Amino acid sequence: MTHRIAVIPGDGIGQEVTPAAVEVLDALDIEFDFVEGDAGDATKAETGEALPQDTRELARGADATLFGAAGETAADVILPLREVVGSFANVRPAVSYPGLDAVQPDTDLVFIRENTEGVYSGIESEIADGVTTLTRVITEDASRDIAEFGFEYAETNGYDDVTIAHKANVMRETDGLFLETAEAVAAERDAEYNTALMDALAMHLITHPEDYGVVICPNLAGDMLSDLAAGLVGGLGLLPSANVGAENALFEPVHGSAPDIAGEGVANPTAMILSAAMMLDHLGYGEAGDRVREATEAVLDEGPRTPDLGGDGSTEEVTAAIVERL
Amino acid sequence: MTHRIAVIPGDGIGQEVTPAAVEVLDALDIEFDFVEGDAGDATKAETGEALPQDTRELARGADATLFGAAGETAADVILPLREVVGSFANVRPAVSYPGLDAVQPDTDLVFIRENTEGVYSGIESEIADGVTTLTRVITEDASRDIAEFGFEYAETNGYDDVTIAHKANVMRETDGLFLETAEAVAAERDAEYNTALMDALAMHLITHPEDYGVVICPNLAGDMLSDLAAGLVGGLGLLPSANVGAENALFEPVHGSAPDIAGEGVANPTAMILSAAMMLDHLGYGEAGDRVREATEAVLDEGPRTPDLGGDGSTEEVTAAIVERL
Ligand SMILES: CC(C)[C@H](C(=O)O)[C@@H](O)C(=O)O
Ligand SMILES: CC(C)[C@H](C(=O)O)[C@@H](O)C(=O)O
Repeated sequence: MTHRIAVIPGDGIGQEVTPAAVEVLDALDIEFDFVEGDAGDATKAETGEALPQDTRELARGADATLFGAAGETAADVILPLREVVGSFANVRPAVSYPGLDAVQPDTDLVFIRENTEGVYSGIESEIADGVTTLTRVITEDASRDIAEFGFEYAETNGYDDVTIAHKANVMRETDGLFLETAEAVAAERDAEYNTALMDALAMHLITHPEDYGVVICPNLAGDMLSDLAAGLVGGLGLLPSANVGAENALFEPVHGSAPDIAGEGVANPTAMILSAAMMLDHLGYGEAGDRVREATEAVLDEGPRTPDLGGDGSTEEVTAAIVERL
Repeated sequence: MTHRIAVIPGDGIGQEVTPAAVEVLDALDIEFDFVEGDAGDATKAETGEALPQDTRELARGADATLFGAAGETAADVILPLREVVGSFANVRPAVSYPGLDAVQPDTDLVFIRENTEGVYSGIESEIADGVTTLTRVITEDASRDIAEFGFEYAETNGYDDVTIAHKANVMRETDGLFLETAEAVAAERDAEYNTALMDALAMHLITHPEDYGVVICPNLAGDMLSDLAAGLVGGLGLLPSANVGAENALFEPVHGSAPDIAGEGVANPTAMILSAAMMLDHLGYGEAGDRVREATEAVLDEGPRTPDLGGDGSTEEVTAAIVERL
């Protein structure tokens, strides 16, 4: 069976790291049909739309989508794409690799970020001159879905620690509902968990990341906390992510289009290749996913490395080294 | 002229660190009239209210207020207290001290956190079964006030770097207004600045705190980012804060009531004593404020230190050592 994969490189280093991931996938014994779609700043300049209708259709119709990065238009591309694939869970692992200069070398975290609501509702207005409002939405259904996904993920992947992040002391109704629903899910599953105010959690994750495993978060808290974790493990160049829906999914690095280094051939392909490994898991090729992760980790350990990790390797050299080790 | 200072120790270690700060203030040659007020969990248990009316009046009528910490009722105490003193700016310095085991020893940051709006509006409801909303409010007036305060603070305190934190790519109207207003203030003052998406900023602050100085933030972003900075410099036990209004102000440590160590006499008084130093500055005793900071820094460097900093000193020993060095 051939899997149809939508490939959307986007802008900047998305154009460099996406082909790298495809090269790695091509080196495996799995039949993929890669179909490329356009999105991002350049696409908007050409067509007037950052995410044209045919790219949406491509993602909707594919078995999975690989997305690179977008520039100024990032929100106009990634938020609708997450919706198109119906993803409710954003899975963001942050792991320190041996030999890399991490702020906290003992980090092994996975953020399970609610992917549909919170301040991402898009409901904003200027209700009077100089007075604007945004409606933050939290529903029991979405909170239940993300909590079930999070506890299931922890179980399947061998994480003992589950933390529910929230700010229910201030956002009493909304994060109150999020927290209460997640705690109810834990009780139904008879699962252990902790809860943490997201501000205090930000501090503790920095000083004691080893105390945490899976962190279930509302949308914006997950956005910030996962970037924070990127800081702990040595940068955004390493963090993959999966946007998981009931029937479809989208895989993307946590990093952006990095215009400062785009076009120089030195972008770190790790985050994108590890995103492709998450796609392999999702499509049922967990063993191939492991092979890609092991090869990537070996290359992180022994080099070549790209400049963001202190090396002088190119995107191509790193990718070739990973392919060689598969 | 005698200054009337409302002293509200609150719960837990608030009962230990607040007297420590008063002891330090008492050792200076300044006339203070300290009047104590009740607030917090214990007060609620006794009176039914976490922040009784007479404590509010006390804070409103004082020249400044020192607040320790509160437990479960923290939000019911601190949020109304910030309102009572009319504070629009929450000033949170985060500095690494030599000799302490900081995650990032080169940190010298000051968060200027908007203190009245954002998701702290308190406007929430359950609009349907299992569907809750919160109205996040951002106004031009409050954004202008905090930006002016932030740029002024940077100038007065010799910080070259000012960063405006926001998430205007997602919260387009609300953080859009915040960002646009802050940029307009910078332009009027002919001040240099950078802007940063708060998620990316969370990462960069961890890997390169030395690149930042003053960070002007919306309310919740400031809440998270300042706790993150506490993680960088060695914990919440070190971070003071000032809630500044036009005519009144409230000074409090960033830490909470720490029920796990309360009553043991080992709470770190540093954050509270440095908060008192910020109060001295505010009341026009900048020189006395400097004396307190220098004495505190010397004791941080040479000990005694409380257990959170790896020492075995008590709150009293640390306080006595600071007083001795004044
Ligand atoms: C680009 C932006 C809309 C996006 C988000 O906020 O989700 C990004 O920060 C991310 O984390 O994927
Ligand atoms: C206790 C809570 C309401 C408060 C806040 O969110 O402002 C606290 O976290 C702080 O930072 O002072």
